[in-house]
Amino acid sequence: MNIEELISKMTVEEKISLLAGGSFWNTQPIERLNIPAIILTDGPHGLRLSIGTDPGEMLSNTQPATAFPIESAMAATWNEQLIRELGATIAEECQYYDVGIILGPGMNGKRSPLGGRNFEYFSEDPYLTGKLGTALVKGIQEGGIGTSIKHFVANEQESNRMVVSSEVDERTLRELYMLPFEMVVKEAEPWTVMCSYNKVNGTHMANNNKYLNGILKQEWGFEGLVMSDWGAVVDKVPSVQYGLDLEMPGPGTRNAEVMEAYRNNQITDEQLDDHVRRILKVIRKVLEQKREVSSIDVEQHHAIARKVAEEAIVLLKNEAAILPLAKQAKVAVLGKFAEVPRFQGGGSSHMNPALLDSPLDEIAKFAQTVYGAGYDEIDNEELLKEACELAAGQDAVIIFVGTTEIIESEGYDRADLSIPCSHTQLIEEVSKVNPNVIVVVNSGSVTDIGAYESQVKGIVQAWLPGQAGGSAIANILFGEVNPSGKLTETFPLALEHNPSYLSFPGNINQVKYSESIFVGYRYYDAKKLDVKYPFGFGLSYTEFEYSNLYLSSNSLKDSEVLKVTVDVKNVGSRAGKEVVQVYVRDVKSSVMKADKELKGFTKVELAPGETKSVQIELNERDFSHYVEHLGKFAVESGEFQILVGASSRDIRLAETIVFTASEDVREPLTLLHSLQEWLKDDRNTDVVHSLICQMKIDEHSPMYPIFLGMPIRTILNFLPSFGYPQEVIEQIHEMFGIVLAVRENG
Amino acid sequence: MNIEELISKMTVEEKISLLAGGSFWNTQPIERLNIPAIILTDGPHGLRLSIGTDPGEMLSNTQPATAFPIESAMAATWNEQLIRELGATIAEECQYYDVGIILGPGMNGKRSPLGGRNFEYFSEDPYLTGKLGTALVKGIQEGGIGTSIKHFVANEQESNRMVVSSEVDERTLRELYMLPFEMVVKEAEPWTVMCSYNKVNGTHMANNNKYLNGILKQEWGFEGLVMSDWGAVVDKVPSVQYGLDLEMPGPGTRNAEVMEAYRNNQITDEQLDDHVRRILKVIRKVLEQKREVSSIDVEQHHAIARKVAEEAIVLLKNEAAILPLAKQAKVAVLGKFAEVPRFQGGGSSHMNPALLDSPLDEIAKFAQTVYGAGYDEIDNEELLKEACELAAGQDAVIIFVGTTEIIESEGYDRADLSIPCSHTQLIEEVSKVNPNVIVVVNSGSVTDIGAYESQVKGIVQAWLPGQAGGSAIANILFGEVNPSGKLTETFPLALEHNPSYLSFPGNINQVKYSESIFVGYRYYDAKKLDVKYPFGFGLSYTEFEYSNLYLSSNSLKDSEVLKVTVDVKNVGSRAGKEVVQVYVRDVKSSVMKADKELKGFTKVELAPGETKSVQIELNERDFSHYVEHLGKFAVESGEFQILVGASSRDIRLAETIVFTASEDVREPLTLLHSLQEWLKDDRNTDVVHSLICQMKIDEHSPMYPIFLGMPIRTILNFLPSFGYPQEVIEQIHEMFGIVLAVRENG
Repeated sequence: MNIEELISKMTVEEKISLLAGGSFWNTQPIERLNIPAIILTDGPHGLRLSIGTDPGEMLSNTQPATAFPIESAMAATWNEQLIRELGATIAEECQYYDVGIILGPGMNGKRSPLGGRNFEYFSEDPYLTGKLGTALVKGIQEGGIGTSIKHFVANEQESNRMVVSSEVDERTLRELYMLPFEMVVKEAEPWTVMCSYNKVNGTHMANNNKYLNGILKQEWGFEGLVMSDWGAVVDKVPSVQYGLDLEMPGPGTRNAEVMEAYRNNQITDEQLDDHVRRILKVIRKVLEQKREVSSIDVEQHHAIARKVAEEAIVLLKNEAAILPLAKQAKVAVLGKFAEVPRFQGGGSSHMNPALLDSPLDEIAKFAQTVYGAGYDEIDNEELLKEACELAAGQDAVIIFVGTTEIIESEGYDRADLSIPCSHTQLIEEVSKVNPNVIVVVNSGSVTDIGAYESQVKGIVQAWLPGQAGGSAIANILFGEVNPSGKLTETFPLALEHNPSYLSFPGNINQVKYSESIFVGYRYYDAKKLDVKYPFGFGLSYTEFEYSNLYLSSNSLKDSEVLKVTVDVKNVGSRAGKEVVQVYVRDVKSSVMKADKELKGFTKVELAPGETKSVQIELNERDFSHYVEHLGKFAVESGEFQILVGASSRDIRLAETIVFTASEDVREPLTLLHSLQEWLKDDRNTDVVHSLICQMKIDEHSPMYPIFLGMPIRTILNFLPSFGYPQEVIEQIHEMFGIVLAVRENG
Repeated sequence: MNIEELISKMTVEEKISLLAGGSFWNTQPIERLNIPAIILTDGPHGLRLSIGTDPGEMLSNTQPATAFPIESAMAATWNEQLIRELGATIAEECQYYDVGIILGPGMNGKRSPLGGRNFEYFSEDPYLTGKLGTALVKGIQEGGIGTSIKHFVANEQESNRMVVSSEVDERTLRELYMLPFEMVVKEAEPWTVMCSYNKVNGTHMANNNKYLNGILKQEWGFEGLVMSDWGAVVDKVPSVQYGLDLEMPGPGTRNAEVMEAYRNNQITDEQLDDHVRRILKVIRKVLEQKREVSSIDVEQHHAIARKVAEEAIVLLKNEAAILPLAKQAKVAVLGKFAEVPRFQGGGSSHMNPALLDSPLDEIAKFAQTVYGAGYDEIDNEELLKEACELAAGQDAVIIFVGTTEIIESEGYDRADLSIPCSHTQLIEEVSKVNPNVIVVVNSGSVTDIGAYESQVKGIVQAWLPGQAGGSAIANILFGEVNPSGKLTETFPLALEHNPSYLSFPGNINQVKYSESIFVGYRYYDAKKLDVKYPFGFGLSYTEFEYSNLYLSSNSLKDSEVLKVTVDVKNVGSRAGKEVVQVYVRDVKSSVMKADKELKGFTKVELAPGETKSVQIELNERDFSHYVEHLGKFAVESGEFQILVGASSRDIRLAETIVFTASEDVREPLTLLHSLQEWLKDDRNTDVVHSLICQMKIDEHSPMYPIFLGMPIRTILNFLPSFGYPQEVIEQIHEMFGIVLAVRENG
């Protein structure tokens, strides 16, 4: 496909027609020029290919495909290589079904645990999101299938998502919500980016020049195409002008208006050609990378889904080492989710699994089981009573609880963190008749575990684990697999403690990201709040010791790399995997900083007694923050601590380095800065001491603090009122004038 | 003084000259027309009249006058009548010194416990601030002296106060920061209002048309004059155009530019005359209400200062009823503040007390005392050692601690809530040698009491109690007076828990009031955070029981008054005073609301065994919130709870009423609202159910939640993609068109 030749042959009408989908899940073909349609379809944790266009059946009548654990579960593996393998598997199924682009992964943040689509996102930490997103995109694209990282940007809620404006300051956008996209764009070159429905700071993302043309395409050098989320185009002509290449779904709504705008010279040939070129390049990639896949090894893909689920499961509580359970133990398995598995969320990621494990059947392979549903969709006293009878006298009880489909779905946000009353009631009643209760939680994100935590001995966070979740859970419970998942979002003590509680989801017009950079552990740390389970937390059936933290240098300059080395030893009696986490703490900063930020991690497998030396590299960016007045990420010189730990609140080792940046990132002092700020600042203390001296201000005078708080401008204005001689006033003015002139000239 | 005649005789130059002070603390006299200068001077808790203009001595070389407890202490009395009496006393001293206007009271809010000037403000609650401000203004003005309520508005910090822009949404401004000013303007008609230094939403208050001309003068009907805080005028011509009457201090900086603007017709005669008229009216009031006061009864004024201090002191802890102390007990009095009393804050309110009690001497009148300074300005091991020796074996130890002058002052904000290490160390060491420690805290606002609370038996929050603080403290400690003060600000468990911790004090350009209406107890309640001592808390040497809560009605309409009656009984053995607090809780609201808001209070004195029936009235405003889209306060119909309690976290009785408002305050639904919002809203359910029916959407389909979250606009746009017949599409469009048309026509 010779793109430039094709463009030269296309009429304006044909070009414009290409800028919107041909139907719900296709691009527009142009038969005259042999430009085929390609298929774009959902979704991040497995392929969903609709059969037909009936709106009610669009998500339910679909081709079977491997349902992997949802994204929040994938994230909990902290295993980039495994996610990449998962991506390759998805790509293979896409090739089989002739799909060109799979719509994902979701890269949005978790401002609130109530975010309705949190199960489709990786983490509250943007660095972790960026790393795992990169792995998934690489895995899929290496299989010759395009991705569409979504939803760009600041789309952290479902409420009013199609009309609301996310009001976010630039630093927060850059450091939290754009960072994952930036990382994936720069490290994995996704073929496409999907813009979000919402507005950012007043402008719909589908026509947001600053973010689409400015930052994404120009600043980050994104060469792929930008498509709209389905139905996200509202301002039609501006969307063409400001960087949206492809409107979805089709038939497009823009064509007539765009043609008129073109005729009126509001849209240029260069703009049209740029959009067409980007679309054709993606179509060409799809064609070029088309591979023949005649059949899918369903069992093998199921095994990969199981492997991911096993590494995703997070062991939250294991009192008296109740887990792993002894094989052949007598256990009651309770809760309908054991029989009818909860394995995926609702909405556009909803799919038709190729296979589906039953947790109950899988547990029965290891133990002597009895089963009771325990709860139903409506209150059911009979089931509850039966469950208690079944539980009494067993060696242990495994209770499956979690969010129902109606609780976690695209389309709306959650109302609270609770699971159904019937689930908590089941735990409460059963724990009265049997002291050995293990709860398996199926949920896509945080739930209120505090409601029953003290009543049970074991808690297994099993997420929505995909089609092989049943066997993965059984393998964890009976010790076939040692749990190694860690939380990628904080479980707070109370919903109300969460960072955006008082500003989520805003109103129909706007949602203010009032908490700024303080999201997730950044917030709980800064606010000194205890949490139920911290970011990065997860238990194992073995224990790990950290030692010999070694930094390649105790000082660092721009563009130098710091190598962080640490020894991790498995001091228990089982093989296991540990997620080693590296955080950076800025000891002192002229701007507000989080207490610490994740900047590196690795997952390491260790036999009993084995020690491995783990190395993680840090560079300039890892010490930087977004400096608004410079318009870029930069480092403020000073001390930084390198913290190595097993969770964000289990830091095992720390060392300090000094970073010496070539540039001073602090804002220059001006006449609007107060005397106190001039005094505190090492850049010019002479002149202010002269001022104090000239003015003969006694430091013990009650006026002194008032002067301290005054901007120099105000002090200069006050000098006549205080009766200073004109000569002294002029000297003082001159003094500051010289300093400021020097400052302005660098 | 015939004002209109004077205006007609004045030249433009004379008019302009009158718009700025004549010197630092005077208005500009015009001798030709016999217009005298009047004196305006600080400050809220007693008169400070400078002698001379030396900037270093301006606050220290001043006339002696009665130093009352600082404003936060006054507030802790919750006693409007007493505050009014205090005001009358200040007025008398102003008359004696020929002062016309006293600059206060401060009416700003307490966004952060770090606010450097919190000691000069009443409360974190705007209603309480408004009530107490009203009492103080009435008291002063009844004495023929003008007040200047300050600093209008959104000036809740010292950092960058002369340049920063307070970014606050309209509802928060109205409900929290403007409310106290609105209440005082409407209920007490202050002669003057002082505008603050800062900007609000981008514009300096000295030239902020919206707030000065628009809200203050036009909407609230303020007829007095608006003066600038000292040096607050930056944009000179706009300040004259947009409502600032008087620039302070003098000589003015605006005259030349204002004259030029006048000549260029940028300033009209009407504008000039309005300013001049407002200034002359205040000068006339000062002249007309001048009273001959030939001498001051210093002792009597001291007694009033003592009375206020006694009612201001808050008993925070009294383990094992260690207080009151037995007379003639053997006590060690420790801490330099016992000898050199901490009785006022730093900055413009700093004054020269007419008398000054020594706490040590006053305690010695009741007990056998030994004294040790315990700490000094620098570390002093000797003093600490001596204190421990003195403390051992005494019946009790009274330790004076608190903030130093350098910690609490106008001009800068506090860095943290700590008191000096030497103070906490004194408590720690002494409590090891004597179990009966009572701590007296001298501070203008919250300090970190958690640092030593568990080590001591008694904690007395004595504030900066003014010149008679020494005797007031002694009277409380030995039971001459039963403590009755209650906190008007929350003492949090940790500084980091405070509502504005992550957005205070912003940067030099702006401070975002990100927590919106959730300040003080509104925040701690909403965030479900435990606190050290809640808003409204204070112990007594007796106990009170609440009973028989009676509401005059269980339903209410616009402009009706609800009478809340409750019986309070003193069930202890000492006479005492109780502050009965009435809070209103909105059970369900379409906007974010605080859990409850203070809407009434009264202080009642009860002999042992005595019961009194207390009545508090509530009206429409007490159930309202500021409805932005209507631009006014209005009530949303529904249930409200009336809570009666002894503190914000000690609610004793509650009843429910239904308020039926004549107006529907909810925003109208539009095509931008989601299907879910249309479904939830009782105003139009028929049409959405028809839509769902027409579209044949199955509620169990995974698409259903996606449709739920879609704005109607988007659903309508999607209909063609879903292949609906044109006829059905038109029917649906028509259906919504009719509803919206009906809506628009009311």
